Amino acid sequence: MNPPTVTTRLVALLGTPLGHSVSPPMHNRVYQMLGMDYCYLPIEVSEEDLGAVFTGLSKMNVAGCNVTIPHKVNVMKYLDELDPVAENIGAVNTICFTAGRAKGYNTDGLGFITSLEEESRTQVENRRFFVVGAGGAAKAICMTLAHRRAAKIYICNRTLEKAAALADRINSRVTNCSEPVLYSPTAQKKAIAESDVIINCTSLGMYPDVSSLPLDPSFITSRHVVADIVYNPRLTRLLKEAEKRGAGILPGLGMLVYQGAAAFKLFTGVDPLVDEMYAEASKMMDKK
Amino acid sequence: MNPPTVTTRLVALLGTPLGHSVSPPMHNRVYQMLGMDYCYLPIEVSEEDLGAVFTGLSKMNVAGCNVTIPHKVNVMKYLDELDPVAENIGAVNTICFTAGRAKGYNTDGLGFITSLEEESRTQVENRRFFVVGAGGAAKAICMTLAHRRAAKIYICNRTLEKAAALADRINSRVTNCSEPVLYSPTAQKKAIAESDVIINCTSLGMYPDVSSLPLDPSFITSRHVVADIVYNPRLTRLLKEAEKRGAGILPGLGMLVYQGAAAFKLFTGVDPLVDEMYAEASKMMDKK
Repeated sequence: MNPPTVTTRLVALLGTPLGHSVSPPMHNRVYQMLGMDYCYLPIEVSEEDLGAVFTGLSKMNVAGCNVTIPHKVNVMKYLDELDPVAENIGAVNTICFTAGRAKGYNTDGLGFITSLEEESRTQVENRRFFVVGAGGAAKAICMTLAHRRAAKIYICNRTLEKAAALADRINSRVTNCSEPVLYSPTAQKKAIAESDVIINCTSLGMYPDVSSLPLDPSFITSRHVVADIVYNPRLTRLLKEAEKRGAGILPGLGMLVYQGAAAFKLFTGVDPLVDEMYAEASKMMDKK
Repeated sequence: MNPPTVTTRLVALLGTPLGHSVSPPMHNRVYQMLGMDYCYLPIEVSEEDLGAVFTGLSKMNVAGCNVTIPHKVNVMKYLDELDPVAENIGAVNTICFTAGRAKGYNTDGLGFITSLEEESRTQVENRRFFVVGAGGAAKAICMTLAHRRAAKIYICNRTLEKAAALADRINSRVTNCSEPVLYSPTAQKKAIAESDVIINCTSLGMYPDVSSLPLDPSFITSRHVVADIVYNPRLTRLLKEAEKRGAGILPGLGMLVYQGAAAFKLFTGVDPLVDEMYAEASKMMDKK
């Protein structure tokens, strides 16, 4: 790409560590392909320095920021405005600077849903979801599913209190569609039988513990779509087991690409080249 | 060049306006040629925002900053340490971040001297200089000449008080070699007759007022070297008049290139490719 000039708009990625983030090559590739005068810049920053870095960036020619672990919640105190979905999620992964104001968004759930719609041809509205996990990814996905009028969202977590808290938050803030589920085979089996889409929102199955499973795969049938947010390995053990049982599967890489695509659109107002973003993300995966 | 990654060290240029600065292409060109993982980034910043931007940058993977108009003096209050030459000049154009500490340098005078040595084969030690102007460039050049043991520095300025103040500062801080000169033909003629090198440190002759002269060229003889800090046009009227009289001439572009080369070395520890920097600076001039 061309070196940055005074007219180049920056987009910063804030988090730590950022060593293997796919976002910089995904965004920069599209800027380059479309001849856009933007530069996506990964900035490793500690929690202690986040405020100073964010304030400095807000005075520079910066279109916005992506925010990743561990700053998705902390960064909210520096924002002037919050998109309602991000507010309900309670975390931000995308910030746009417009006329000196910083507005926070969360495109993680949207990224998942777009991947589901585009790659599994599965609509959210009136569908029933079984989600394992109640951490950051579960919050973003479940809350966005609720905003998109999912019929039911079962949330199953080892610590039931966390599942109950997330279900309550969804029910009180969006619509009364969510229910916590005990982390027991009986309870899981029943809820999965009543669901259309199963989503693993835990890190179980992620490299190097690739043999771990978030649930008993015998509960999966051919009418399910099974999604995994884990993208390393690209095909997790859960997805392989689901495939064996004739279920539809959705690997985690799509969520990663589409959350980036949604952020790209927010930063620039331009539709990105999703295939190019996919290609860059795949390239990074292959290096791992 | 390759898009920046998390390992890329940034070098920021702080000033406003920066629209036609030659520094970004000069530095980025050499990073590219030498395969160095650096990115030189121009950041237009107001005086009001300088502190916030500087503090933010100091927490990022930034090797250093160049500082230009109007921040060369203001930026000093944010530094932890000052090089003695910069301290005596009272202005900074280069800042290095090392182990969390910001140290300020001034390579403007050094850039001039290196240009004089390399391009005019003229040594500073024991030479006598006649300088017109007492602003920022004059301060940097005269103070650095004094540090390099110039025998005499005449400073001639329309406002004599400014010339006297600069001469006093040199005499008290470095060595007793400087003398203010009245801005009158008689005084100029006498001091020029006693000098080896004449330096225009005013903007007289700069585009669009290309016919202006800082002094009566009839005082110039073939034993003088005449230097101009003005680099647009590349050959000023003063230099053309000097050439006619058989004097050696030194255009301003060299100072611009060598101040950048000195900064490059401070930021990276690596000797830059001066010819490449020259080529980029020339290219920018040709666009003007």
